[in-house]
Amino acid sequence: MIFITRRERFNAAHRLFKPEYSDEQNLEIFGKCSNPNWHGHNYTLFVTVKGYVNPETGFLVNLKDLSALIEIHILEKLDHRNINLEVDFMAGKLVSTENLAIGIWNELKEPISEMGAILHCIKIYETENNFAEYFGD
Amino acid sequence: MIFITRRERFNAAHRLFKPEYSDEQNLEIFGKCSNPNWHGHNYTLFVTVKGYVNPETGFLVNLKDLSALIEIHILEKLDHRNINLEVDFMAGKLVSTENLAIGIWNELKEPISEMGAILHCIKIYETENNFAEYFGD
Amino acid sequence: MIFITRRERFNAAHRLFKPEYSDEQNLEIFGKCSNPNWHGHNYTLFVTVKGYVNPETGFLVNLKDLSALIEIHILEKLDHRNINLEVDFMAGKLVSTENLAIGIWNELKEPISEMGAILHCIKIYETENNFAEYFGD
Amino acid sequence: MIFITRRERFNAAHRLFKPEYSDEQNLEIFGKCSNPNWHGHNYTLFVTVKGYVNPETGFLVNLKDLSALIEIHILEKLDHRNINLEVDFMAGKLVSTENLAIGIWNELKEPISEMGAILHCIKIYETENNFAEYFGD
Amino acid sequence: MIFITRRERFNAAHRLFKPEYSDEQNLEIFGKCSNPNWHGHNYTLFVTVKGYVNPETGFLVNLKDLSALIEIHILEKLDHRNINLEVDFMAGKLVSTENLAIGIWNELKEPISEMGAILHCIKIYETENNFAEYFGD
Amino acid sequence: MIFITRRERFNAAHRLFKPEYSDEQNLEIFGKCSNPNWHGHNYTLFVTVKGYVNPETGFLVNLKDLSALIEIHILEKLDHRNINLEVDFMAGKLVSTENLAIGIWNELKEPISEMGAILHCIKIYETENNFAEYFGD
Repeated sequence: MIFITRRERFNAAHRLFKPEYSDEQNLEIFGKCSNPNWHGHNYTLFVTVKGYVNPETGFLVNLKDLSALIEIHILEKLDHRNINLEVDFMAGKLVSTENLAIGIWNELKEPISEMGAILHCIKIYETENNFAEYFGD
Repeated sequence: MIFITRRERFNAAHRLFKPEYSDEQNLEIFGKCSNPNWHGHNYTLFVTVKGYVNPETGFLVNLKDLSALIEIHILEKLDHRNINLEVDFMAGKLVSTENLAIGIWNELKEPISEMGAILHCIKIYETENNFAEYFGD
Repeated sequence: MIFITRRERFNAAHRLFKPEYSDEQNLEIFGKCSNPNWHGHNYTLFVTVKGYVNPETGFLVNLKDLSALIEIHILEKLDHRNINLEVDFMAGKLVSTENLAIGIWNELKEPISEMGAILHCIKIYETENNFAEYFGD
Repeated sequence: MIFITRRERFNAAHRLFKPEYSDEQNLEIFGKCSNPNWHGHNYTLFVTVKGYVNPETGFLVNLKDLSALIEIHILEKLDHRNINLEVDFMAGKLVSTENLAIGIWNELKEPISEMGAILHCIKIYETENNFAEYFGD
Repeated sequence: MIFITRRERFNAAHRLFKPEYSDEQNLEIFGKCSNPNWHGHNYTLFVTVKGYVNPETGFLVNLKDLSALIEIHILEKLDHRNINLEVDFMAGKLVSTENLAIGIWNELKEPISEMGAILHCIKIYETENNFAEYFGD
Repeated sequence: MIFITRRERFNAAHRLFKPEYSDEQNLEIFGKCSNPNWHGHNYTLFVTVKGYVNPETGFLVNLKDLSALIEIHILEKLDHRNINLEVDFMAGKLVSTENLAIGIWNELKEPISEMGAILHCIKIYETENNFAEYFGD
């Protein structure tokens, strides 16, 4: 079994808050990440898939195909977007790095399976100092 | 003469647009960077100052002092902010990397001069692939 | 289960040596790392914790709290210090990257558990080419 | 049990193709990676070994020894080489990142075992966006 | 006057040699870089242009346009190519990093001028430890 | 005229202090950098030289020769050393990044001139956030 990882990037705005709280309450819980006027990040995404090498190609999967799949299912939805307002699979969720990793996992699991590989890990950097990893349940 | 550089980072939301244009016109000129719901970046800022080494300290300037000065004049205004809506020195300007570099230069030139150094360059990365540098007029 | 990592940095001096050996013997075993006048590094530390997302916050743990905890338990002891002479939890130990990873694990395991998360991994870079990882026994 | 990783680099030429296919067929399957005139990469290799800390040295293995072992068994064969034409352990194989990771694993497993450590992972970056990991069968 | 830089990457094979010398003579002068079977690199290219900010757009030049121009004039010729055999503007030249920087400068100077900017610097990394910069004559 | 840069690294211990002051006075001026038990860094050094391309080789200078020259004149003196106690060209000086850049310049200027190139810049990183550059008087 071999593991292959593709790195992708997207730039997006977000805000950490609960709609049932006031701005003051959100500030208390989420600090400056709750700014009602939004802030944003250059997110870096690492998608790791696993499986067996195809002896015809030497590949587990063609990384161009994997990149195109991430483009369609993830980057077109997230890049240059407001994650709270515009991303269907994050609607109604707290836009933390943790929830973003889980959300991206759920979007990619099935399409990667259809490519003949198994999704192993979603790793997402919010800043150079903070990242989340999700390996499924 | 010696040159000293301090790297700082801030995360902010912005949008490229001209208020006198429609969303469609802005989309045509600025592409997805004109998203009316904003997007954002992890900006990386390099502030370079020049001058002579103080023989009492071995420093041109104490980098802790330079960092604190950047914190007060720049990061408190930009970090976790919406640059179009909340940053006084960018009000009414197109929030391009070019204009951000010039705006930060204008904010820092005088305070750095008061520290006994000369501002030499503002370099700002918007993404890992794009950066602007400004050396004054 | 989700995994969250916080990166921190510290700058310290150290020396690899056994006090019962002569400088010549230490040089033979540890090479230039045994320099009796010390040398030093910019260490980079990655602390990974695991657990479940709190539905109230979207977080496993607040990374500001995790960073503050690492500051108190680790960075205040190690940053700008001589690890051989000044760090209680490394006293009497060989200051290898391996032992430093294990020492930091032992310092952080309990406090992280009290935050409601489980310490998963201590990863520490001594240089850009060398790092150690410890996952507990 | 502790894990130690050594990073090494090599620069090499390669080509993705199957000798039984025409250049046109190879282009269809492997894209521009099948260029009959070759292309190349700065490969970055991470070798992770695991085991127990030797109380006499504080080391799992001396990283200088591990680096020298990688030099002899891997870098002397791969660095500044044409992987398809000149590397014995890749002869007759498709030179994908996947097969390169497996090939390096097979070369290093035994020598690392003789050092008293266990090979845990071969991780190899072909570009900043693509890497493969192999942990054995 | 403002300076804007775009980073691009390409992967290519090359060889350092003089055709009038034997392989042995080339080995003596150019070392393993003269391997007759080629080797290769992930080259990183930084193109810096200068000029004045257009008040209509906030840009010196649109970086998408600059990137597309580099793609057409440089990357389509160099990426996944053998620089000695396949790149018109390097034909008959020693493929050193120095000559590559000068060659790229000559290809880009005119097209960038037609965009309304001035080419300021070509910077090219051959490895993480070596780079060349050319600012014109 | 072309510019070529070689990156090198060294790990060293140092302390910022003036011998005529007490530890308390040094702490007041230099903060934790004055720790009497030393601290240390992974320093990264960039040596930039300029000149004309030799048409026989395609090189300004052979980077292997430049690297060997830096090894002999700088790294053998600084790597795994205590800069305050063991480095002849820093004796009696405040070991700031500024003074280190100037000291390295003075050591390298003549030998690089003898290679047929002109020393253009010494750039030295003390941490990922701080660096000094010296271009001569």
